[in-house]
Amino acid sequence: MDYGYKLALKVRDYECDIQGIVNNSVYQNYLEHTRHEFLLESGINFTELANSGINLVVVRAELDYKFPLKSGDEFWVGLNLQRSSKVRFEFSQDIYRSHDEKLILNGKIIGTSLNERGRPFIPEALEKMF
Amino acid sequence: MDYGYKLALKVRDYECDIQGIVNNSVYQNYLEHTRHEFLLESGINFTELANSGINLVVVRAELDYKFPLKSGDEFWVGLNLQRSSKVRFEFSQDIYRSHDEKLILNGKIIGTSLNERGRPFIPEALEKMF
Amino acid sequence: MDYGYKLALKVRDYECDIQGIVNNSVYQNYLEHTRHEFLLESGINFTELANSGINLVVVRAELDYKFPLKSGDEFWVGLNLQRSSKVRFEFSQDIYRSHDEKLILNGKIIGTSLNERGRPFIPEALEKMF
Amino acid sequence: MDYGYKLALKVRDYECDIQGIVNNSVYQNYLEHTRHEFLLESGINFTELANSGINLVVVRAELDYKFPLKSGDEFWVGLNLQRSSKVRFEFSQDIYRSHDEKLILNGKIIGTSLNERGRPFIPEALEKMF
Repeated sequence: MDYGYKLALKVRDYECDIQGIVNNSVYQNYLEHTRHEFLLESGINFTELANSGINLVVVRAELDYKFPLKSGDEFWVGLNLQRSSKVRFEFSQDIYRSHDEKLILNGKIIGTSLNERGRPFIPEALEKMF
Repeated sequence: MDYGYKLALKVRDYECDIQGIVNNSVYQNYLEHTRHEFLLESGINFTELANSGINLVVVRAELDYKFPLKSGDEFWVGLNLQRSSKVRFEFSQDIYRSHDEKLILNGKIIGTSLNERGRPFIPEALEKMF
Repeated sequence: MDYGYKLALKVRDYECDIQGIVNNSVYQNYLEHTRHEFLLESGINFTELANSGINLVVVRAELDYKFPLKSGDEFWVGLNLQRSSKVRFEFSQDIYRSHDEKLILNGKIIGTSLNERGRPFIPEALEKMF
Repeated sequence: MDYGYKLALKVRDYECDIQGIVNNSVYQNYLEHTRHEFLLESGINFTELANSGINLVVVRAELDYKFPLKSGDEFWVGLNLQRSSKVRFEFSQDIYRSHDEKLILNGKIIGTSLNERGRPFIPEALEKMF
C-alpha cells in the first residue's frame, strides 16, 4: 500500500504493560503524533489552532490490532488523508514493524474541526489540502 | 440502555490535553480499567492470567466520540459483554457524564484470549460466564 | 504521621509496566491528582486558574521510592502543605498501601504560582490558606 | 557540561497538559527512555533482565524543573552515570531545548538492581561498566 506520509518511531519501555507489549491505548498516541506531524508539514499547527479557538477533534476511531509491538521494536506509521464529507476527514493510518514490514495495526480515524461554539469550521489551510 | 456492570470514575487533570479536554487515547484507559474491574468481579484476574501465560488481548476497537470530558467531570462507564464467536468476546462500553447523563462515548471492544503460543485459549472462568 | 488531607485510590493495570509494577512516572500522576483535589477543596481550581493566566507549577520534586505498588493494590496519598518562602509552597506527600499501611513513597513537591509573564503571583485563595 | 550519552527527542502534543506545557510526570518518561537506551548501548537490556528476574529499579528521583517544554519543542537529554555505593548507581540527567540550549530540567536518579527475592544483585554487564 502507498502512503502519502510516513513517520518512523521506536517503542519506549514505559509504553509497555504487564503483558510485555505496547498497551492498547498507546497506539492512539502514535497515531495522533503522526497526524499532528503530518498536519504541521502541511502548515496546520494543532496547538496554534487550539489557542485560537479552533479545535481539531476525533469523532470516530476504528483500530484493528493485528500483532503487538514489544520493547525495543522500531516501527513506522503510514498515513493517507481523504475528505469523507464537507466537514469530515478520514485518516487511514497503519502501523508496520520496521525490520520485517509486519502489519501491526490498521486504523481509521475520522476527524472534524470545530470553532469556539462547537460548530464545524474548516480552517483555510485545511481546506487547501483537498 | 441497561448495563450489566457500571464503574464510576472522575477525570484527572493530567489526562487533559492542550485543548483542555480528555485526550482521545485516555478513553481507552477508562474502558480497559472498567473491563478489568468487571472481569475481576467475575473471578478473572488479567494480571494473574498474564503471569500464567494466558493473555487477554484486544483485536478491534470502535470508538465514537460524542462529547468531550473536561477537568473535574465525574462520569461512569457502562459495560455489557457478549460472545461474538467461539473465541471472540464483544464488550459494549459507553461513557456518560454523571451529573446530566450526557453521552460521552460509544465503544465496542472485541477481545480474545491467547495462550503462550499465540493460539486462542479460553480460560475456564471466562468460559463459565456464558 | 498526621496528614491534613488524604485521598484513596487504586492501581489501574495500564499504569503497570513490564516489571509488573506501577511505573515510576505514574506516582507523579497520583501526587498531582491528590494536590489538585486538595486545592479544589480549598477553593483553588487548577484549570480555571490556568485559563485565567495563572499557572501553578512544580519547581522541584523529590521522590523516595520505598516499595512498589502492583496491579490491584489499593492505596492512599497523605498530604501536608507548608509555605517555604513568600512564593514557594512545599507539599509533603506520602503514599501508603491500604491493607497494611506499608509505606510506598515519600515525596516532597515544591511549587509556585506564576502569572502570564512568568512572574510569581499568588492568587488570593492560595494566600488565604496560610 | 559534558555528558557521556545524549539522546535527542521531540515533544509530542499528547504529552502536554491544560497549561499547554509538557506535564511534570512526562519528564520522568523522557529520563527513563534515555537511561534504557544508554544501558542498551552498553549491552544491558532492561526488558530481558526483567524477564530473567533481575529488576533495575529507581530508589530516588530529584527533579529541578527550570523551564517548561512546549508543543513542538525539540530537546535532548544528557546523561552521566556514576556508582554511588556498592549497590547504588547515580544517573545525572539534564534536559536542554535544542534550538537555544536552554536548560529545561536537572535530574538525579538513583537506582539499584534487585533479584527475584528483592535483594541487591548487580548483573555482570552492569558491573563491567565501572
